[in-house]
Amino acid sequence: MASGYGAAAPLRVWFRGQDAGAWVCTSHRTLVGEDIPAASHMDMRAQPGPETPAPAFLLLGVVSNLRYTTAAEAERLVANSAGLGRAHATRGVLIPIRKTPAWWALAQDERRFIYEEQSRHTSIGLKHLPAVARRLHHSRDFSEPFDFLTWFEFAPEHEAQFDDLLAELRASLEWSYVEREVELRYTRAAA
Amino acid sequence: MASGYGAAAPLRVWFRGQDAGAWVCTSHRTLVGEDIPAASHMDMRAQPGPETPAPAFLLLGVVSNLRYTTAAEAERLVANSAGLGRAHATRGVLIPIRKTPAWWALAQDERRFIYEEQSRHTSIGLKHLPAVARRLHHSRDFSEPFDFLTWFEFAPEHEAQFDDLLAELRASLEWSYVEREVELRYTRAAA
Repeated sequence: MASGYGAAAPLRVWFRGQDAGAWVCTSHRTLVGEDIPAASHMDMRAQPGPETPAPAFLLLGVVSNLRYTTAAEAERLVANSAGLGRAHATRGVLIPIRKTPAWWALAQDERRFIYEEQSRHTSIGLKHLPAVARRLHHSRDFSEPFDFLTWFEFAPEHEAQFDDLLAELRASLEWSYVEREVELRYTRAAA
Repeated sequence: MASGYGAAAPLRVWFRGQDAGAWVCTSHRTLVGEDIPAASHMDMRAQPGPETPAPAFLLLGVVSNLRYTTAAEAERLVANSAGLGRAHATRGVLIPIRKTPAWWALAQDERRFIYEEQSRHTSIGLKHLPAVARRLHHSRDFSEPFDFLTWFEFAPEHEAQFDDLLAELRASLEWSYVEREVELRYTRAAA
């Protein structure tokens, strides 16, 4: 049995782009598809509100059970895991993506095959653990503008390693199914 | 490629137990875990409201992409599929279930193995198609009281066949992971 990776109750997280917050935006790039409004700061919250002032963007995702990971992979993930909020991990990156209808029309075994056997998605992530911590948020079932919001945290000296991870994933077959992708980089605001 | 089974945008559905509505409740049974409030009627809606009068129960689920089905299975499902709303299918059954934390702690390959290789979930459903139409709604990521809401529709003469389907599923290994299950049977209200 996998080590309780998905046993916790699903956790909803709102990413709120606004004028102040825990994370200061240092870079905002749109790789494919429509952009989102710019914001100087970002906060992650367990609630959408308060409603005022209205945020520049408000994106919802849920941390949920694993959808493709096998028991063997989950064990390696847990053994090498890195949590969010490490004091030295002062860099954060939010990458919202949406996949094409063709991706969602695939059956489970077809998506798994492209995700791991062809694109090595989990293996690539594992290679950069524990330097680059990662949390995946599922958005598609909430009728959100993106399907996934991935949040990364790492120390400044691991930014080049993070760039390698991104380059590998973006060169994969899986990424040919990405029809919208934005990349927002942040530095943790001074306490 | 599977035949577009999951390509449509996810569809949120609210099941609203109340004093009037399209479906008249004929039976309300709790098989395991806590019951839900009784209601004489039920409506399915694309919106939660209106807020008044307050419903006896209000359950939300989303019709989303397939999570376990292989391409070969999806092809057989599509070839034998039956839609909702058939004029002769005047019987409806809503079965909300919640699975244990142990289920959700399993990795994808472990859940798939129990779901199909051991419990024949898709195969059992296929055997009763097209007589018994079925639509699965995912609830867990919405922090709802149940993980899944399954809605069935069939003609009165197929009720015994539906009972066989239920008995087979409930005898499966997969069902040992069910910690809450309610069964609500309905007849379509006269037009």
